[in-house]
Amino acid sequence: MGVNSNRVEDFSSHRITTESVMPGMEIHTVCLSPHKTTLQKLKQRLSEIFFPDDPLYRFKNQTWRKKLLLGLQFLFPIFQWAPEYRLKLLRSDIISGLTIASLAIPQGISYAKLANLPPIVGLYSSFVPPLIYAILGSSSHLGVGPVSIASLIMGSMLSETVSPTDEPILYLKLAFTATFFAGLFQASLGLLRLGFIIDFLSKANLVGFMSGAAVIVSLQQLKGLLGISHFTSKMQFIPVMSSVFKHRDEASDIIAINLQWSWQTIVMGFSFLVFMLTTRHISMKRAKLFWLSAAAPLTSVILSTLLVFCLRSKTHEISFIGHLPKGLNPPSANMLYFSGPDLELAIKTGIVTGILSLTEGISVGRTFAALKNYQVDGNKEMMAIGLMNMAGSCSSCFVTTGSFSRSAVNYNAGAQTAVSNIVMATAVLVTLLFLMPLFYYTPNFILGAIIISAVIGLIDYQAAYRLWKVDKLDFLACLCSFFGVLFISVPLGLGIAVGVSVFKILLHVTRPNSLIMGNIKGTQIYHSLSRYKEASRVPSFLILAIESPIYFANSTYLQERILRWIREEDEWVKENDGSPLKCIILDMTAVTAIDTSGIDFLCELRKMLEERSLQLVLANPVGSVMEKLHQSEMLDSFGLNGIYLAVGEAVADISALWKSKPDFPKDYNETRPCIETKR
Amino acid sequence: MGVNSNRVEDFSSHRITTESVMPGMEIHTVCLSPHKTTLQKLKQRLSEIFFPDDPLYRFKNQTWRKKLLLGLQFLFPIFQWAPEYRLKLLRSDIISGLTIASLAIPQGISYAKLANLPPIVGLYSSFVPPLIYAILGSSSHLGVGPVSIASLIMGSMLSETVSPTDEPILYLKLAFTATFFAGLFQASLGLLRLGFIIDFLSKANLVGFMSGAAVIVSLQQLKGLLGISHFTSKMQFIPVMSSVFKHRDEASDIIAINLQWSWQTIVMGFSFLVFMLTTRHISMKRAKLFWLSAAAPLTSVILSTLLVFCLRSKTHEISFIGHLPKGLNPPSANMLYFSGPDLELAIKTGIVTGILSLTEGISVGRTFAALKNYQVDGNKEMMAIGLMNMAGSCSSCFVTTGSFSRSAVNYNAGAQTAVSNIVMATAVLVTLLFLMPLFYYTPNFILGAIIISAVIGLIDYQAAYRLWKVDKLDFLACLCSFFGVLFISVPLGLGIAVGVSVFKILLHVTRPNSLIMGNIKGTQIYHSLSRYKEASRVPSFLILAIESPIYFANSTYLQERILRWIREEDEWVKENDGSPLKCIILDMTAVTAIDTSGIDFLCELRKMLEERSLQLVLANPVGSVMEKLHQSEMLDSFGLNGIYLAVGEAVADISALWKSKPDFPKDYNETRPCIETKR
Repeated sequence: MGVNSNRVEDFSSHRITTESVMPGMEIHTVCLSPHKTTLQKLKQRLSEIFFPDDPLYRFKNQTWRKKLLLGLQFLFPIFQWAPEYRLKLLRSDIISGLTIASLAIPQGISYAKLANLPPIVGLYSSFVPPLIYAILGSSSHLGVGPVSIASLIMGSMLSETVSPTDEPILYLKLAFTATFFAGLFQASLGLLRLGFIIDFLSKANLVGFMSGAAVIVSLQQLKGLLGISHFTSKMQFIPVMSSVFKHRDEASDIIAINLQWSWQTIVMGFSFLVFMLTTRHISMKRAKLFWLSAAAPLTSVILSTLLVFCLRSKTHEISFIGHLPKGLNPPSANMLYFSGPDLELAIKTGIVTGILSLTEGISVGRTFAALKNYQVDGNKEMMAIGLMNMAGSCSSCFVTTGSFSRSAVNYNAGAQTAVSNIVMATAVLVTLLFLMPLFYYTPNFILGAIIISAVIGLIDYQAAYRLWKVDKLDFLACLCSFFGVLFISVPLGLGIAVGVSVFKILLHVTRPNSLIMGNIKGTQIYHSLSRYKEASRVPSFLILAIESPIYFANSTYLQERILRWIREEDEWVKENDGSPLKCIILDMTAVTAIDTSGIDFLCELRKMLEERSLQLVLANPVGSVMEKLHQSEMLDSFGLNGIYLAVGEAVADISALWKSKPDFPKDYNETRPCIETKR
Repeated sequence: MGVNSNRVEDFSSHRITTESVMPGMEIHTVCLSPHKTTLQKLKQRLSEIFFPDDPLYRFKNQTWRKKLLLGLQFLFPIFQWAPEYRLKLLRSDIISGLTIASLAIPQGISYAKLANLPPIVGLYSSFVPPLIYAILGSSSHLGVGPVSIASLIMGSMLSETVSPTDEPILYLKLAFTATFFAGLFQASLGLLRLGFIIDFLSKANLVGFMSGAAVIVSLQQLKGLLGISHFTSKMQFIPVMSSVFKHRDEASDIIAINLQWSWQTIVMGFSFLVFMLTTRHISMKRAKLFWLSAAAPLTSVILSTLLVFCLRSKTHEISFIGHLPKGLNPPSANMLYFSGPDLELAIKTGIVTGILSLTEGISVGRTFAALKNYQVDGNKEMMAIGLMNMAGSCSSCFVTTGSFSRSAVNYNAGAQTAVSNIVMATAVLVTLLFLMPLFYYTPNFILGAIIISAVIGLIDYQAAYRLWKVDKLDFLACLCSFFGVLFISVPLGLGIAVGVSVFKILLHVTRPNSLIMGNIKGTQIYHSLSRYKEASRVPSFLILAIESPIYFANSTYLQERILRWIREEDEWVKENDGSPLKCIILDMTAVTAIDTSGIDFLCELRKMLEERSLQLVLANPVGSVMEKLHQSEMLDSFGLNGIYLAVGEAVADISALWKSKPDFPKDYNETRPCIETKR
């Protein structure tokens, strides 16, 4: 019975016990995993880390030619769907493409303003990237273009160092460079299959982060909506609010209450804002009326432009966009900026916007894929988005990704394939070539209103409430990222939020649950005594379940905690006149890993219990733990009657042994002593 | 059967099934934990985090008077052992006290040199702190005094900014201030019960860190041993080695090969080094000859001093200590430095040395406590060591802690209580008052030899080999801290090492194991198919065990991985003509926690499987997971036949159900749909 070093290697099946066990009961040997070399283990581990989805499984057992085709389809998903494209689908794609174009044009202009870039860059960014995504991307519903969060962050991070009004060329260069690095970072993540990095932005963090950013973005739009001309370029709550209410006279340096508000702007701005929010509300209630919210921004732009055009001689208080150049994206590869003092800033901005836009793009892609029951490959999507941004940075585009609002409209309008993105790009092309002069009188307040109505949906108080209900620590992470973004800064807020999430994992590992188990009568099932009233203590046994890997970070804690369990059990036995404790069984089912400190802990615990004439038994150690015990030669020291396959078997076998040898626990240690660990 | 929201609340014991289950078999309801309010849960959680050992349990049910006495004993452990002290013990304590004094005096002088402090400070530090520890400390075997690592780090961190030769007073002030902050930090950790922070320095890290530091310290001693006068104050490998071999002429700024080596110094230094290493080797082989290595340093000091005294007129190349002031520790509270430009440096140095000396002190205390089978309370020890350092900083002492070499000698010499520390302090007192002039001719090379023979034992290649054998990632952490310390810097090396350890935990969480389980014939035990040959597949079922909590960091991975398991199982079924898959059972035993992302993952997985007419069943969710499922209303959506207490029960119940309703999986979803999660 039990395990010793000679027997753990073989896979001999049952052990029918000879002397000490209840008649008829079989006790099973605990096996080691099949032997593997270090190299094999490393290979397996790496393939689990980097290729969990086994992306090349389609290539197995295929002819050379088929493999080539599959490879082409793998790299360019367009080859997968294009050959099967039917004209029947074209109609839906054209409708959805035109619908998202009507959303993309005003949003593009607005988000470019959010990033402190010329409005035309927003339109450029709605032309080239969608075309590239249509070739490389694997989602059929993603609507590609600039998004609010990434634009906002790019704007705020760059303008903290370089003023977009004083040095517009340098600012533009930095924006394109940041876009290039964002794309490079995204594509590398995908290529190196490090996509799991974005998983560290948990949903709780994102809820808080998005809400915080939405609040800031909305407040910043008060500049346009109230018609204020001097406004902070900072991103925090306090400077923004003081810009709204206070005015610093630059000549005298006196701070006074802001009197710059323009009532005409306010009236018109808020009217259009209410209009757009109402259509949004209606569309959310009835999915069929999705076109209402999709068409509202363009309608508002047209109406407000007309209004300003008519009023142009009566009032000069309303600011408008002004001249926009006609024509296609000019090349901008020569504007990329690979040396100089601000390179670090560009790289940093690129990484932060890159990771955030990636998170949005991937999660939007997954959401709509799940609705239509297909899968998007995260790492491939990252490469598509990354390449799209790298190409964009060479053709006067700033950071783009899959936008939630555009994708939702695309999906609701019945998009079938990425052709809808091509249609949208074509519509933007026409706009760029012919319609630019029409935007001359488009007022700035309407851009603010469009942004507010787009980001307001990001303030997801219901999700926050759900977090509070289910998981208080998740809610705390959410709050941290919300207030971090609002009061400190975007990168720091994100950092704090990720820190809280990681801390949560570490806390779970540092202070793992351990609980006393009892037998559920009539079964071989052992369960928590405190949770199951039908579970009952097994006399002379203390059965403890440890609910975490045993690591350096918790081995001291576990030792203290287990000794306390034993002390409390002793007290309970005294009070209740129970039979004295003779054996501690550790249920190792949930101990999914162990490190060298953990092994030392087990060794030390065993020695301490031996001194008190208590036996320590492990039940059901998992494969990797068994292996480590074997490698560290601990297995030998546990020896006979030390390791069992299940708690039930341990209890049965040891009880039977006690019956046959009443003074058993005192002299059972004929096995080798625990290995002394040298310090 | 199964669980629904009305039934989970009650603790009704068994459910005898009515229609669908094998006759005679009982299926058990999965319970929720007893209901607790948020406040109760918070209280329980906090007490697990901060008071896992329930330190106040002795105070329960005691009279007021007894409580006062216990409180006094709790705060001052001397009241615990002093009343029981017998004269019989005194003999052992005097012998061990004098033995460690003979080690403490030369070590004290040497370690003070290591910290670039006047040698006398090392003796001061062997007088006051041991007395304070004797009152406050709970270990009977800890030998208190300066230690090599902390001295080294203090010396290197401070001398990077302030030169100990150019500004000796400022340097001394900073050293005392750093000692004060080290003590404050240590005491606060103990008081706030944050002692678990030092657990994050895993054994693997410490092995690497100590070895790296020992190499550097030994190399630095080449200054004394080779008789080089100009030597770098830097700590990295490269500057130290270039100081040994190159000499920069300050007048001409020419770098040449070092010709400063003094052969007399070299011959004598290495002779004594060999002598000490030999005695150390003998003592390690035979524990009874411990006194050999304990007496060797003092013997060497005496012999070498005599030698230098005799040769003083013949050679001037041998440098010696020179004049040391007689007398007790002067007060130094007025030298503490609480403002000014270098305060930050002092605080940083204090924290780093504080945490490292704490780690050494606590682990040494625990080691010897385990040998004698008593326990030391980590948090109380931290307060004792912290207060000892704070008091030390006001009486001209630098950082002290429990030293491994001294404690080992103390233990081997038969120390019984902290009285041996008092005896040692008395011996140091006598030295300070009367014997200081005898050290005038003590040569510097002997100090270097003492340091080398003390730190050489820290290079623990056997432990490193054991790490390699048992856990490759632990070995990597060890290597990182070794090379980090050697080539970069001590704090950064430590930081990297902690980073690697934390990364290891995160990696385990991000890429958890999942495995297919099979039934071990004739039992209700389910186990890994790949590990147990006797385990066999259950037709139509795929039983997956997930070996980790389900968190934001792994929910995407798990989804991909589970879909791959299903795909591979489908392929297997096709190849082997098995019965088609109908049900996926997730064994949740090792899923010890879940967060909101994890719940979304389960919800989404269930929906995806439903689309393929596959049933998803959870087996044995632990208490906290059940609770979260309940709070998020997921429990209702799993509804009937969705959650079972054990895999065996799930298989039995569902198989029976299939027999009674052949087309069951298609129409079993009469329960409410999964809650839509809003993004």
